[in-house]
Amino acid sequence: MSLIVQKFGGTSVKDLDSIRYVAKKVMMARKQGHDLVVVVSAMGHETDRLEKLATNLCAHPHPREMDVLLSTGEQVSIALLSMALVDIGCPAKSYMGFQVPIQTDSQFNKARIVAIDEENIRRDLKAGFVVVVAGFQGVDENGDITTLGRGGSDTTAVALAARLEADECQIYTDVDGVYTTDPRTVPDARRMSCVTFEEMLELSSLGANVLQIRAVEFAGKYNVPLRVLSTFVEGPGTLITYEDNNMEHAVVSGIAFSRDEAKLIVRGVPDVPGVAAKILMPISDANIEVDMIIQNLGDDGTTDFTFTVHRRDYDQALKILKAVAKEMKAKSVVGDTKIAKVSLVGVGMRSHAGIASTMFKILGQEGINIQLISTSEIKVSVVMDEKYLELGVRALHDAFELHKAPVQEEYPSRIRA
Amino acid sequence: MSLIVQKFGGTSVKDLDSIRYVAKKVMMARKQGHDLVVVVSAMGHETDRLEKLATNLCAHPHPREMDVLLSTGEQVSIALLSMALVDIGCPAKSYMGFQVPIQTDSQFNKARIVAIDEENIRRDLKAGFVVVVAGFQGVDENGDITTLGRGGSDTTAVALAARLEADECQIYTDVDGVYTTDPRTVPDARRMSCVTFEEMLELSSLGANVLQIRAVEFAGKYNVPLRVLSTFVEGPGTLITYEDNNMEHAVVSGIAFSRDEAKLIVRGVPDVPGVAAKILMPISDANIEVDMIIQNLGDDGTTDFTFTVHRRDYDQALKILKAVAKEMKAKSVVGDTKIAKVSLVGVGMRSHAGIASTMFKILGQEGINIQLISTSEIKVSVVMDEKYLELGVRALHDAFELHKAPVQEEYPSRIRA
Repeated sequence: MSLIVQKFGGTSVKDLDSIRYVAKKVMMARKQGHDLVVVVSAMGHETDRLEKLATNLCAHPHPREMDVLLSTGEQVSIALLSMALVDIGCPAKSYMGFQVPIQTDSQFNKARIVAIDEENIRRDLKAGFVVVVAGFQGVDENGDITTLGRGGSDTTAVALAARLEADECQIYTDVDGVYTTDPRTVPDARRMSCVTFEEMLELSSLGANVLQIRAVEFAGKYNVPLRVLSTFVEGPGTLITYEDNNMEHAVVSGIAFSRDEAKLIVRGVPDVPGVAAKILMPISDANIEVDMIIQNLGDDGTTDFTFTVHRRDYDQALKILKAVAKEMKAKSVVGDTKIAKVSLVGVGMRSHAGIASTMFKILGQEGINIQLISTSEIKVSVVMDEKYLELGVRALHDAFELHKAPVQEEYPSRIRA
Repeated sequence: MSLIVQKFGGTSVKDLDSIRYVAKKVMMARKQGHDLVVVVSAMGHETDRLEKLATNLCAHPHPREMDVLLSTGEQVSIALLSMALVDIGCPAKSYMGFQVPIQTDSQFNKARIVAIDEENIRRDLKAGFVVVVAGFQGVDENGDITTLGRGGSDTTAVALAARLEADECQIYTDVDGVYTTDPRTVPDARRMSCVTFEEMLELSSLGANVLQIRAVEFAGKYNVPLRVLSTFVEGPGTLITYEDNNMEHAVVSGIAFSRDEAKLIVRGVPDVPGVAAKILMPISDANIEVDMIIQNLGDDGTTDFTFTVHRRDYDQALKILKAVAKEMKAKSVVGDTKIAKVSLVGVGMRSHAGIASTMFKILGQEGINIQLISTSEIKVSVVMDEKYLELGVRALHDAFELHKAPVQEEYPSRIRA
């Protein structure tokens, strides 16, 4: 008998039929003798609906009241799922964030969990209840309702699993696991049986958005075995594991890519100290997130400064840069929104030299020009013309043989029957 | 400067425009220097929508979870109204029941308030906030969410007003006060400036459903000055006052009537002790509420036993009665759903003999046959054929001159400018 935390997202509880289905699924796990804590998100597009109510009412909804409003979405879900469970003979009890309590700081709309009291949940688990907890919400020290920001339900699930020392935290979603790359682009993309926390972090931050990045960080930090599974298709999903188990790992695990980026170049910047800050400070002051940053020294004592931002921020960033460039007497500012980023990710890269150069060679053979390169310990990212994206990803997936499973990839489950 | 509790029902906050309008109204009262606690119901038909979700999900939704679900309706309203207030420059803060806290017993779906802690509200009022409280909900000693049952928001408002010793509790609704009778039936029905708690109890229980009956009881018990006003039409509304002020009161204050009743008669019941209980116990066991009860002794040692129930319960009651009648060897069971009840209400009746006989005379002059009569200290009710209802009410309204205001009806307000 194990303690399992299961999390069902908005698409898994999008209507009453789905809720009934989830209830049956939970009931089956309960019948296997497991203790269950179930975290649910708001139904389907309920959070969007509530958000629209607020923004239609006033331009800048008060953050505290926004959280009071948004938290109703999950509250409806826990009530309905608990009812559905009781209805099929499975004792269940719903918990709002403040009832656990899940204590957070007071940053409304993007609060962080600071403590979870496990006493109430433990008591109800012991009494035989399935405990159904509202994701995404908590309570601050003043008793005010807070929310954790978009996708916060994953974080709720992982935090609960960490606090309760659960044997597994299962994130049910509408995909059946984490793939070597997007199957819509590469038909022979393969579901990975397991992936390391570090790889998962790179894969999700790079666009393979299966899991909330904060939840993955949290799971890694507290050693929570995390599994991504499909609500509606049976299967083992993908287990997110620790890097320091000694299995034979593939060199490259997966390929992430993104079309959401835009490139900005300030040409002919005088090469003096403090230039990078002068360019980037006004950008970050405007709350624009910068992804890749590259600086090249030219031979005329000036430098070209290049960086990428989210495509939606491009126009604003360009406007800011033009003012900055004028002020610092740079030659020109140019940009490009028709770019794409492709990243190879894998913890195996650490001990394998030459992955980057292999990547460049493959892309070169396809006639794809690389515009920018950025590397970290477990990934290599390149920016290319958007039109080459699918071609590049398929070529890399092929060349690194990602459709083939590594020799020994299974990882022992902690769940006991 | 006074402390006022204002309550806005579902029709007053049915959409974003209405919420903006209510915010302006609250802001105006605030600008007059009053401290304000505002209680709101769920938007329009939101409670019905949530209830339907639950009953479509399962036949018998778990009562505890039903309250978790239903309480989201008011939660959405307080968040939106608070946002709207802040948006127009009026500091406001929302409170869910558990945040006040409004402590109730643990009878889910029909909880009763047992205590209200005023400390948090007092602190926020002192800090200059308009305090916006979710009606209809509370929290029990286990920290579980409870609801007070349909119309519970009125009760929330009155209970808060009592606890905070508010100068007035204003119930905003879609009518501009309490009328001598339904203006749709009697065009010259008159809005009363004031009405006593006792009269209001009779008037609302008899069909003039402006206020929740529990709220009126509560207000009477705790001496809360209660005023019914229209959200959308300016005016003084109707103040519900204590009987023991020495104003000159009209003999008859108003006429209530109802078409929702049905009559059942068991004929030829053996006249032995315990008969009434034998007939009525199975009815109340089936959770059917009985209104009027009349028993007449015949001259053959048997008795006719008559009572009225809500029309929706008629079929069930008839079925139960037929079994009972057979068992107790009664002659027959007959019934009639085409009846109506008309009641004269007025605290002045106490000291004025002959009101009942005047009523019977007036009805007789109109050729209306009286089927049943029931009296109490401040009302006289008769049951007649449904088709005579409007005629009877108009004749009585005319004869007792209810369209004319009593000599001195105004009651001094406790609100200080």
